[in-house]
Order: sequence, then structure tokens, then C-alpha cells
Amino acid sequence: MNNAIINNMEITTVNESKINSVDFESIAFGREFTDHMFSCDFKDGKWQTPKITPYQPLTLDPSARVFHYGQAVFEGMKAFKDDMDDVWLFRPEDNFNRINISAKRLAIPEFPKEYFLNGLSALIDLERDWIKKGEGNALYIRPFVIATEPAISASPANEFKFMIICSPVKSYYKGKVSVVFAQDYSRSANGGVGFAKAAGNYAAQFYPTSLVQKEGYQQIIWTDANTHEYLEEAGTMNIFFRVNDTLLTAPTSDRILDGITRKSIIQLAKDNNVAVEVRPVSVKEIKEAAKNGSLKEIFGSGTAAAVSPISDFKHGEETFKLEEQEDSYATFFKKKLTDIQYNRTEDKHAWRVKVEK
Amino acid sequence: MNNAIINNMEITTVNESKINSVDFESIAFGREFTDHMFSCDFKDGKWQTPKITPYQPLTLDPSARVFHYGQAVFEGMKAFKDDMDDVWLFRPEDNFNRINISAKRLAIPEFPKEYFLNGLSALIDLERDWIKKGEGNALYIRPFVIATEPAISASPANEFKFMIICSPVKSYYKGKVSVVFAQDYSRSANGGVGFAKAAGNYAAQFYPTSLVQKEGYQQIIWTDANTHEYLEEAGTMNIFFRVNDTLLTAPTSDRILDGITRKSIIQLAKDNNVAVEVRPVSVKEIKEAAKNGSLKEIFGSGTAAAVSPISDFKHGEETFKLEEQEDSYATFFKKKLTDIQYNRTEDKHAWRVKVEK
Repeated sequence: MNNAIINNMEITTVNESKINSVDFESIAFGREFTDHMFSCDFKDGKWQTPKITPYQPLTLDPSARVFHYGQAVFEGMKAFKDDMDDVWLFRPEDNFNRINISAKRLAIPEFPKEYFLNGLSALIDLERDWIKKGEGNALYIRPFVIATEPAISASPANEFKFMIICSPVKSYYKGKVSVVFAQDYSRSANGGVGFAKAAGNYAAQFYPTSLVQKEGYQQIIWTDANTHEYLEEAGTMNIFFRVNDTLLTAPTSDRILDGITRKSIIQLAKDNNVAVEVRPVSVKEIKEAAKNGSLKEIFGSGTAAAVSPISDFKHGEETFKLEEQEDSYATFFKKKLTDIQYNRTEDKHAWRVKVEK
Repeated sequence: MNNAIINNMEITTVNESKINSVDFESIAFGREFTDHMFSCDFKDGKWQTPKITPYQPLTLDPSARVFHYGQAVFEGMKAFKDDMDDVWLFRPEDNFNRINISAKRLAIPEFPKEYFLNGLSALIDLERDWIKKGEGNALYIRPFVIATEPAISASPANEFKFMIICSPVKSYYKGKVSVVFAQDYSRSANGGVGFAKAAGNYAAQFYPTSLVQKEGYQQIIWTDANTHEYLEEAGTMNIFFRVNDTLLTAPTSDRILDGITRKSIIQLAKDNNVAVEVRPVSVKEIKEAAKNGSLKEIFGSGTAAAVSPISDFKHGEETFKLEEQEDSYATFFKKKLTDIQYNRTEDKHAWRVKVEK
């Protein structure tokens, strides 16, 4: 192993990469990890020296707060390789800002910006061989923070670990997605943590999702917990509805994640003269639009999923199938977005950030 | 270390207890742990051989699902020592039943009853020296389950670890508690996981609680997320209101934990001819009762807190102080409850379970 101190980071690299043991063609999402990881401990009231080390297990006391109280937040982002072998991040400062928004709501101390951006760059630079060229290939990057303090009182921890791990990925969903509009279960409450990438938000969706999966659906589009009349988000995706030629999506709130892909699509819609309405979208209007033929498409947006077209949806006992569109907005926005991500086009909003060698 | 197989459990005991290093007089809640722990892994579709081992750190991959998606549930229970040095559990089957109710909602496989009860008994028997006699002294017992599978796809894990760790404790809250009735933040949604002891429910309360703590209050009594008009629970406690001589407490729901101390107090109230109404309790009626003098007491109930009297509460800008009651129900029910727990009285509902030597 080689050791160095760069940008106040302690960097220890592996002697030999495990990359040759990985079959990149048949890789499953989030199961293979790269050679290194970034970590930084919070103790004695401050974030300590950040480290890049070989990817390795964590050793934690069984009383660590994350195991008991779910005091943990995360982010999801991707790095892409262009045809010149340059590596690009997409709006990384937005992920940085959001992990601290999530952290604040979960009583986790904010992480310093330079630690995040320098650590991210140094780690991705080390792992650039893990990023394959070609549509759908990317390095999925998972920053996360966990409460490590060994004490089971139900109060915020005083010790945390911030980490970044990386996993080579192909596209997340295969083909189109069938969804159910939620009627009984809910994802989040007013005044709750739905807007945060809080760990507990995700496990809470597993059981209801497993119920719809038994019926052949993949995902739930969550509705407001109070009335179940308004469509909110899909847990791992924000949701867009195309009614005639207008895109509709729910406004962000304390129940809905402020998705980076979501806001990029809203901007791309404006850039391309596609009408977009950010407003509450009711189950009733979407069902009526499906019945009268004006509902053309539904698609999800998210870092893992990118743009995910939805083929059909169910609400109660009613099922609705969406026709294939010649001028698909899902296809259009996916291309616009990935062209920027893979450095195939102009990037007028400066969303792309090059990972320097 | 000594090894044995008892009741199909692999038991490895320490050579020397660390008990003499513990200052039982000045112990903080949940920071000291006993010599041993119970663990059992779920993999290949089933729970494997349970083990009791020396208390030791866990080694987990950074991608373990618990760190990312909060797929974790827990229980809280206590063991008490009577004057004859016998050790007693309180309604342990209720904790067993509830951890599986929580587990189901979090898509965690149910744990077998005999593993739970045998493991619990064997572990507590080993640790009986850690349980001190005397009011307030107890062994706090923390069963919990975490998703250990190393893969960051947002779906239920296939590998879990069930554990029981034990911590010697004195009483949880010192003195009376000042509370705020929630108006902005919320604990749980209809159709959510509020009824489960899901890890993420707890971290979600830390930040709002820290805000009221800055004002000198200790806890929040959560209200319904929809209207904030009905008083629900306090996150680590269920809540009882005494109006004149009647006890009021909210009904359990998908938002409110079915507290074992709560239902024990309801039963004890019936046994002792105290009127109890289990029904929605509005902020408005409690404030009116405080103003007209009919609100005599508020107290919390929970395993960690036992019965916790509340001295005053705040709602918006209004503050209300509760007078000391000569015939305090909090004191009365705490004594009734702890008399059963410490084997000082008849136990007509068979709540007490002796830990056999």
C-alpha cells in the first residue's frame, strides 16, 4: 500500500486492484464496490482528518446509534466517462448541499464542503478505471453518514462517520416500470422527514412495495398521507406526468425529495420550450386524462434510475395502460440529460464537473 | 472462555467479568453493557444457530443495508431483581410479539419464538450479577434486528442479524418532564411506520426535540400530522392525561406504538376502579381542562421511562403548569407497576416471568 497526505487527506492506496475479478457485463446494481473508500469521523465536536483507504469492513459497537435509531442520511450520484476518457460528475454541489439539508433534519452535524468535494474528486480520480464508457455505464457514488456513538439512549449521537463508497453500475431499471398509486400505505407525513434522504424513509417503503410486487408491479407512486388524492413521488424517483404536451410534477415540500434529476428535467423542459407545470397533481385528473386519451406518458426521474418510463398504473381495482409515444418525452429528456452527463453536448448550465487527474 | 451448546444455542462465556470496573451508582443510561450478547444471523432464507458470545464489536460491510435504508427494528424491556435475588422479566412475550409486528412492517423476517425466549433467558441468567436490587435499578434489555446484507439497492435485504444486548440502568428520567405539544413537526403518517419500533422513527424526532430542548423543555408530545389537534405519543413514551379522576389516553393506531407499559396501566386502572377512556384526546380539551383546573396530571409510560410525571407543557405561546397532586395517579400506578415488576405483590395477570437459574 502507498501512503500520502494530499489536501489534508490521508490517502492509502491498494497494492493491487480487484478490478479484474469484476464482470462488468453482468454487474448487478450496488453489489460490487471499487478498491477504495473515503471516510471521515466526527468526534470531540468536529470532523477529523478525512481518509481514503482500501475498501474495508467497518467495526462498530452493537450499541452504535445507527443500528437502533436510524440516525443516518445518504446521497446518490454518478460519475460518467466520455469518449476521450475524461470523467465527469453531474451537479455534485447539489448533492453536497442536499446531504447537509438531510443531515440537519436528522440532527447530524454538517459536513464541510471542501472535505466533500476534495474527497469526492480524489476518490473518483483513483477509481477512474472502474468507470466504463458507453450509455448506461457509470460509477454510482454513495456518500452517507451514520451515527457511530456506542450508547442506546434515544438522543442524537456525538460521534458519526461520513463515508463515500463507489459501485460500478449499468442502468438501474430494465425496461418500463409498472406502478400502483398508493391508497393505504404512506411514505411521509407533513412535518416529517420525507424531503430528506433519511435512511428510515427507505426501509419504510419495502413492505408496501413487496405487496404490489406480488401483483406484478414494481413500484408505488406515493400519495399524500392525509387524503391519498395527490401524487407525490415514488420513493427512489420523482414523477412526471405528460398530459397532451404539458409536463406536470408535484412541487417539492417537506414530504417530497428535491430531486436533482427532477429539477434538471424541469430546466431542460424550459430550455426546449416544453410546457411544465409544477403543482399538485391529483389522482383524479390523471385517471381522467388516461380515460380521455390526453395522458401520454408517466416517467420517473432519479440518479439511480435516470429517466424511467412507466408502462401502466393501477389505482384501486382500475388499471391503465400507457401507449408507446413516437415523440416520447421520456426518451427526449433522457437523451438531453445523458448527452450532458456523458459530455456529448453543450452544458449551458455548467452542471458537468470534470474530475481532474 | 467456556463453550457449550444448550437448547441448540452455542454459548461462549467470558473468562473474567468486567463487572468490577462498572460504577453502578453513577451509571448513565445505555452506555455500559454486560459481558455477553445474544446474536443470530438470517441467511440462506432462514435463521441460523443462535449464539451467546462475549460482548464484542460487529464487523459489517460499508454497504450493509442498515446504514443506507434504516432496515432495523428494536425492542426495549427490563429485568428486575427481587429481595430473594430472583430475577424477573415483565411481559416478555409481548416484546417478542411486538418485535415481529415491527419486523413485518419493515420487511424483516419474523424471528422464532423459542429462539427469542430461550436466548433471552439464557443471556439474562448469565448476567444476573449485573442486576442490582432496589427501586429504579434494572437491567435494560435491547433486542434488535439489523439488515446486514452488503448491497445498496433500495430493496429488502436477504441477510439480517438479530441481537440482544443488555445495559444496567437506574431510572431513565430524573424528576419531572417539561413537554411541548407539537404544532409543526410530526412523528408519523397514516399508513406509515409509527406503530412499529422502527429505527428511523427515532432519529426523525431528534432535531425537533433539540429545538424544544433549547427552550428548556425535554420532550415533545406528538400530535396527528394532519391537523395537530390530537395528542398522540411522546416518541419514547405513551401519554396519559388525568382530567378530574378519569385517565385519558389515545387509542393505538398505525401512528402510535402499542406500549406494553401503556396497556399495563390501562389494566391496572381497571383493576383499581380508576375510570379510563381510550379515545382521541384533543389539544383543545386538555388546554381547557388546564385552564378550568380539571387537568390534574399528565404522565408518560414506557419501558425505559416506566411512569414519568410531566410538570408543565407548552402549546404555541401558552404555557401550563401542573400542580402537585396529593393522590397522584402517576405515583400510584408507578408503585402498582413496580410492585409487580420487583415481585413485591401479587401478579394476578401473570405478567412476571422468572428467569430460571
